Amino acid sequence: MQQWQRIRSISTVVLLVSILLLIWAAPATLLSVGLALLGALGCAGIFISIKEERKQLKAENRRQMIDLIGHYRHDWMNDIQLLFGYVTLKKYDKLNDCMDKIREKALQESGIAKLGIPSLVAFFVSFRLYYNALALELEMEEEINLASLPLDKEKVSHLVQMTVKLFNSLAIPSNDEPNILSVQFDLESEALVFDLIYQGGYDEVALRHEIKRILEFFTTKFATMEEEYTANQAVITIRLPFHH
Amino acid sequence: MQQWQRIRSISTVVLLVSILLLIWAAPATLLSVGLALLGALGCAGIFISIKEERKQLKAENRRQMIDLIGHYRHDWMNDIQLLFGYVTLKKYDKLNDCMDKIREKALQESGIAKLGIPSLVAFFVSFRLYYNALALELEMEEEINLASLPLDKEKVSHLVQMTVKLFNSLAIPSNDEPNILSVQFDLESEALVFDLIYQGGYDEVALRHEIKRILEFFTTKFATMEEEYTANQAVITIRLPFHH
Repeated sequence: MQQWQRIRSISTVVLLVSILLLIWAAPATLLSVGLALLGALGCAGIFISIKEERKQLKAENRRQMIDLIGHYRHDWMNDIQLLFGYVTLKKYDKLNDCMDKIREKALQESGIAKLGIPSLVAFFVSFRLYYNALALELEMEEEINLASLPLDKEKVSHLVQMTVKLFNSLAIPSNDEPNILSVQFDLESEALVFDLIYQGGYDEVALRHEIKRILEFFTTKFATMEEEYTANQAVITIRLPFHH
Repeated sequence: MQQWQRIRSISTVVLLVSILLLIWAAPATLLSVGLALLGALGCAGIFISIKEERKQLKAENRRQMIDLIGHYRHDWMNDIQLLFGYVTLKKYDKLNDCMDKIREKALQESGIAKLGIPSLVAFFVSFRLYYNALALELEMEEEINLASLPLDKEKVSHLVQMTVKLFNSLAIPSNDEPNILSVQFDLESEALVFDLIYQGGYDEVALRHEIKRILEFFTTKFATMEEEYTANQAVITIRLPFHH
């Protein structure tokens, strides 16, 4: 039995007991009986709403899963169609580059899955479903299991998600080149380094301001930052020192 | 605001009013104040359990999503590695077969997504995560949107899921050939035909018995069946006549 189930069972018993006591133990006035009925009605409503919410959540998750798989298939097929094209045209010399690109992508995705913090993995995996202003690229020099580091996992996940979403919201869509945000994690002996390299149009004033606010929210004890802004490029390096 | 949110808001107000009335309007005895406190405690517990359950569900859905994407990537990469192998060995004549296989698979998967009943699509998409006794193959002659047919969508979804799960539970695992269940939907002018062709070892007595029970559960008005059992093969054809 999970914790929430235990809490719910106990609470339900407490509510039932208090309603029954109100009917049997209190002087049987119209008021006490009415209040007991009102209480029972309220409880029934809460339980109905729990059931409905669960149904709703299940339907939403299904939809999300189906969308995600569709996006993935579409993405893979794009790369594969290119390969098929070269095969059909017998341009076999182009195949190696194409294969390298596919291999690298598969490696990148398997690296994401191994980051070890489920909320962060889910964020990266489903990023393209919800954010379209930039293309997100994860550069992984080596496999890093963030969950194994002496850092607050959920805070790391939260910080990464907030900064990536910030870039997405301040990117200026362009018809020429796609905006690209390259994200990289590196290990130092005493810290995790998280690099964001953005290429494309963006609102520099807002970015400077907002990124500072995010870092202040997490405090300098948790994270420090270096920033570099040029036309069409912004590079942010965030250093997260390990706890001791 | 969604329906469950409306129900929950109203119920919460009803509960609060009944608790407050118990304190202010009823004679202020130890019993009535105690009961009001007990009721409030129970309500607080229920709301805490709702929050915890939601967190739990979110974590589960994340895990499921990550697993699913991992399976998908692995699957695609298997097919692509084979293709890469032929390219590396310069066996270009083998590439066409390989490409056809990948294309057919992508078509099959996109056909699943277009079945139109989210619960059924999600079932097929995540089948391999939960059921391992057989390999499921969907044969789609043409694109069929089940949701557009004059049939009870959720009942169709339920029937399909129950029969597929039944085959999975009665399949006898084998080390030689994998067990294969091929599923096919066909449209007739007055009915949807749902074919299940199973190849592999299975418990015939149990299958005959259980499939009959499932069909009886759905009634002959909703679905009729033809069956054919031979050694290592079972063919079930289920006909679902349209409503009028």
